[in-house]
Amino acid sequence: MATMAAIVAPFSFSSLLYSSPSSQTSCSFIQRPRFSFSCRASLSSPPQHGGPTGFMDFPYVSAPHKALMVDLVSTVESRLGSLLNPCSLPPDVQSYQNETGTAHAALHLRSGVQSSQIDFILGSWLHCELPSGGALNITSLSAYLNSSTDAPNLLVELIQSTPTSIVLILDLPHRKELVLNPEYLKTFYEDTQLDQHRQHLQKLSEVTPYFSSSLYIRSVVSPTAILVRIETEQLEEMIETHVTPIAKQVLKTWLDVCAFGERVVGESDRVYLKKRDEMSKKKTIEIDLGSSLPRLFGEETAKRVLEALREVF
Amino acid sequence: MATMAAIVAPFSFSSLLYSSPSSQTSCSFIQRPRFSFSCRASLSSPPQHGGPTGFMDFPYVSAPHKALMVDLVSTVESRLGSLLNPCSLPPDVQSYQNETGTAHAALHLRSGVQSSQIDFILGSWLHCELPSGGALNITSLSAYLNSSTDAPNLLVELIQSTPTSIVLILDLPHRKELVLNPEYLKTFYEDTQLDQHRQHLQKLSEVTPYFSSSLYIRSVVSPTAILVRIETEQLEEMIETHVTPIAKQVLKTWLDVCAFGERVVGESDRVYLKKRDEMSKKKTIEIDLGSSLPRLFGEETAKRVLEALREVF
Repeated sequence: MATMAAIVAPFSFSSLLYSSPSSQTSCSFIQRPRFSFSCRASLSSPPQHGGPTGFMDFPYVSAPHKALMVDLVSTVESRLGSLLNPCSLPPDVQSYQNETGTAHAALHLRSGVQSSQIDFILGSWLHCELPSGGALNITSLSAYLNSSTDAPNLLVELIQSTPTSIVLILDLPHRKELVLNPEYLKTFYEDTQLDQHRQHLQKLSEVTPYFSSSLYIRSVVSPTAILVRIETEQLEEMIETHVTPIAKQVLKTWLDVCAFGERVVGESDRVYLKKRDEMSKKKTIEIDLGSSLPRLFGEETAKRVLEALREVF
Repeated sequence: MATMAAIVAPFSFSSLLYSSPSSQTSCSFIQRPRFSFSCRASLSSPPQHGGPTGFMDFPYVSAPHKALMVDLVSTVESRLGSLLNPCSLPPDVQSYQNETGTAHAALHLRSGVQSSQIDFILGSWLHCELPSGGALNITSLSAYLNSSTDAPNLLVELIQSTPTSIVLILDLPHRKELVLNPEYLKTFYEDTQLDQHRQHLQKLSEVTPYFSSSLYIRSVVSPTAILVRIETEQLEEMIETHVTPIAKQVLKTWLDVCAFGERVVGESDRVYLKKRDEMSKKKTIEIDLGSSLPRLFGEETAKRVLEALREVF
């Protein structure tokens, strides 16, 4: 899991590239590169749209979407506080774009201090113009724990490819096998009543289940994962009324039960957790690196972003 | 996994008892017993409906539903042939009912011969009258491999609680953790293209995803599991046209790739597989025994059925 969010917006690329046919109509262009990829993007090239470009500015998304992301990131950083090191990514990895300025992304990564249970938190946004005239906007926040605990990670992602639809991915991905560890399932998923949020969304007529066609990603998410497509003319209201309170509640559960929960992890479990995290990271990099990041931003930028991230992984 | 199908119709009870609110309307009575449970059911008590009561007769379901189940069971028994021992269940476990004759069930269990990879196959049907005047009918076929192979098991289940709707569960449940074993995911789920069947059904307007509200059961099923509700006035045609060819194809994949596939399983893997199967069995029994089987058939019958099954597990 450690690099699930490494490649700018992990589930986004994976989900969109490998999504089921009905889910990828408006984003299928990503699989057929239409940009110039001899990328020389850096902060010295101002974005075509002007305006702020920092991670916390979320400059391309709607007000409620931005408010949600700012709230989640602020809450995580406030609660974790001194457990986090400052972001040390190079400026041209904190923000980067393609040569023509049609694709633009930001990254925010803070590792946990040595004594903490935090491996790192990673926030990102991605904007790219669509040939149709619209834009794809992805924002994400992930948090990864280290092997001193076996508690689940955190994954929040919003993927908007049309003005009237958004894919929401909201989960605490498990870090132990659930069939073999029903007490783990009980502690983190049943006792926390996480499924009530999925059930709430499922009842809304605007919401349909979303299936990533990457079977690996389907394996990574937990049984209470929210993977839904929301389609409505009132998308901003839907984000304010339904998505925001649920995302805040899931984050609260992660902070209270996972990030600050105390778990006894034996040596063999630590070995297992490290092995599982590494495998997940390797597999995710395979999925993501071979595909959309180079296509959107060019090989050079993709390589630079990944190398910078690898230093802290 | 070994006893996932042990309790007459494993996913059925679990699924119905723990299904999400929108899925359980017509079956919620199961949670509030309305039968007399001082059960003296046996083959000596003829069913209220008369007619055949053997497992392969599937006396209560529609012609296409019966044809599908007979085809699947016949195919499995024909292909596995001499790898299977005869069914040795006592007659009052092969068929049993409640005192008033409103609930009736049949079981068919054949263990694998010592030298085979087969643990056992288990077929079942369950019929019970609903207070509303309709009936609940569940048919299932499961196949379990032993620890000489790590290949997936087989699970087919059809749950019909109204004349115009059916829940279909069709899966090859994995027996190794997928996040840690991507090559296992590739071999059994990607290379076999199992997901095409789920995708085919997903495109039909009569089909919606089905979520068991048992998180454990959601953990047990694979990423290509078909868990759907089909609602249509033309249910029989739907079973003939869509469900039957898909179920036959999934069974063929299981037979070719899993039951007759050759896998190298080291000693530590065998220990893992045994532990995982046992945990799954224990958990499933907890879920099922505490609930619907005693409620539908009485404590005495539930105990008799379970004890008979335990002898071969």
